[in-house]
Amino acid sequence: MARDIPEGSKPVCCIGVGTVGRHWAVAFACAGHDVRLFDSSKGAMVSALAMIDDTLADMEAVGWINSAAAVRARLRPQSDLAAALAGAIHVQENVPEDLDLKRETFAELDRVAEPDAVLASSTSEIAGSRMFSGLPGEQRCLVAHPLNPPSLIPLVEICPAPATSASSVERTRRLFADMGHSPIVVRREISGFIANRLQLAVLGEALHLVGEGYCDAEDIDTAMRDGLALRWAIVGPFETGHLNASNGYRAYIDAYGSTHRAILEDLNTGYDWPPELIDRIDAQLSEATPREAVPERQAWRDRRLMGMLNHLVGTGRKASRL
Amino acid sequence: MARDIPEGSKPVCCIGVGTVGRHWAVAFACAGHDVRLFDSSKGAMVSALAMIDDTLADMEAVGWINSAAAVRARLRPQSDLAAALAGAIHVQENVPEDLDLKRETFAELDRVAEPDAVLASSTSEIAGSRMFSGLPGEQRCLVAHPLNPPSLIPLVEICPAPATSASSVERTRRLFADMGHSPIVVRREISGFIANRLQLAVLGEALHLVGEGYCDAEDIDTAMRDGLALRWAIVGPFETGHLNASNGYRAYIDAYGSTHRAILEDLNTGYDWPPELIDRIDAQLSEATPREAVPERQAWRDRRLMGMLNHLVGTGRKASRL
Repeated sequence: MARDIPEGSKPVCCIGVGTVGRHWAVAFACAGHDVRLFDSSKGAMVSALAMIDDTLADMEAVGWINSAAAVRARLRPQSDLAAALAGAIHVQENVPEDLDLKRETFAELDRVAEPDAVLASSTSEIAGSRMFSGLPGEQRCLVAHPLNPPSLIPLVEICPAPATSASSVERTRRLFADMGHSPIVVRREISGFIANRLQLAVLGEALHLVGEGYCDAEDIDTAMRDGLALRWAIVGPFETGHLNASNGYRAYIDAYGSTHRAILEDLNTGYDWPPELIDRIDAQLSEATPREAVPERQAWRDRRLMGMLNHLVGTGRKASRL
Repeated sequence: MARDIPEGSKPVCCIGVGTVGRHWAVAFACAGHDVRLFDSSKGAMVSALAMIDDTLADMEAVGWINSAAAVRARLRPQSDLAAALAGAIHVQENVPEDLDLKRETFAELDRVAEPDAVLASSTSEIAGSRMFSGLPGEQRCLVAHPLNPPSLIPLVEICPAPATSASSVERTRRLFADMGHSPIVVRREISGFIANRLQLAVLGEALHLVGEGYCDAEDIDTAMRDGLALRWAIVGPFETGHLNASNGYRAYIDAYGSTHRAILEDLNTGYDWPPELIDRIDAQLSEATPREAVPERQAWRDRRLMGMLNHLVGTGRKASRL
């Protein structure tokens, strides 16, 4: 179920090639873009390219792409920032989550990048306005937050700062949509954007349930993996309610709203977890996957994800959503 | 990827054949059990059997089962309660969520069922102790809460009441595990059990985000369907953290714990949603799926779910986890 690759897509640039940056590079290259990669560390670049080769080999083996070599040929590491940025219509920043470093990076990108390039940050935790407000080109700066690994997970959260122009948002939305990703636009800055707020709501209550002895961490993972997430991977939380019975979402809330409110009042997402709880959960998870086996299990997870996404596209999920 | 059906599994009984009851009946029959169905309404039974035929036809078409006819032959509607219960080792109660009705039903089941049968309620909202405490057989009564549709979703939450015996819990856990379902045991009674608390945490914050204009309901569904749920269908929330970087769960919390706490403090899962918000979301969802198209979309969802589960089993997910 390898996808057709559009020819002649315009160049993009990835700044920083850690886990997020190198998976972004793969995503752009799989979608047909020429991708320039820049990292201030030569060692990081060497190791990223080796890991990209592994990812592309897995993708080819699973049938996610037709040719690892063809995708690899679109990736061009550059040791010179100006050369990396020349001609790029979109710059995806993936440096560590440090405000000063992000501010310096955006200032430099705004000086050197093509005047019409959009400058997008992969940050998961820093508001765009703190990174680039006041820059001459602030109107072309925004956050484009992926979930890991962005080479596979379609969601991208586009978060404009107050000064970001509507046209920068729309160009970015279209870029990702054309790649087969699923962009959503967050209308105003908010801590954690959308996905991490939903994720944290789950993690907070999960820590409460395990911490207070209602169940084990493994039970939470089972409840999600073999329960809620199977449904949500097909229809999201609101559509789940709409399809719960035959009369749509309002009828669902009419029937269950008061029960929902009672459970919501009883939640403790702000549970103050003690360090011993983290140690206990770490020990349980490490029993199943010892630290040294984490990379192997990550690769397993990504192969399963490729297979599942392939299946979902193959059985009718809109390709424009993958 | 149809599963082998064990021969000669012991009879079970489904009390009430609404949406939950009829999908339970299908789950038991697919796993090789003879299933007796009882409903106080003859009309409900007739319509349930027609819907079961449709479900089994879809399951056969997708390859989830080898023979709809073979599974259907294990389903026996009974108009007499005593006949339905005779010989059944497990009774799954699925009457409407009304405490008085549940209490009456359990009292009658406890009088009529085989002395060694486990009596399990599918309730999603009533604590077991309120339904069956004080009954002569309260030690064999428990909650076994599925997610819809239990014919497909592996998760079952087993929730003992204080008087429930450990052996009843263990027999029920093994029954579901042998069927290829994923039972978890909730150690103490708690409102919403595990899965609905996690689900409500998401729904509460989602209503907050849409209600305060950060995004639309459709964006929430996209964020979950094309983002979080794809990962969670492979690895649960805790394992997601364990695999986030290369150093396991404790390192994940060391790195992100303080950011997590900041986002958690900012969540508003207890958002007091106004009725206009529900109307607006209902209107948006109804534009995509008008009320009259809900049954068709439900069938689509279930076919996608069968296909996805088939894929997951076929590519190495433990069959015992489906």
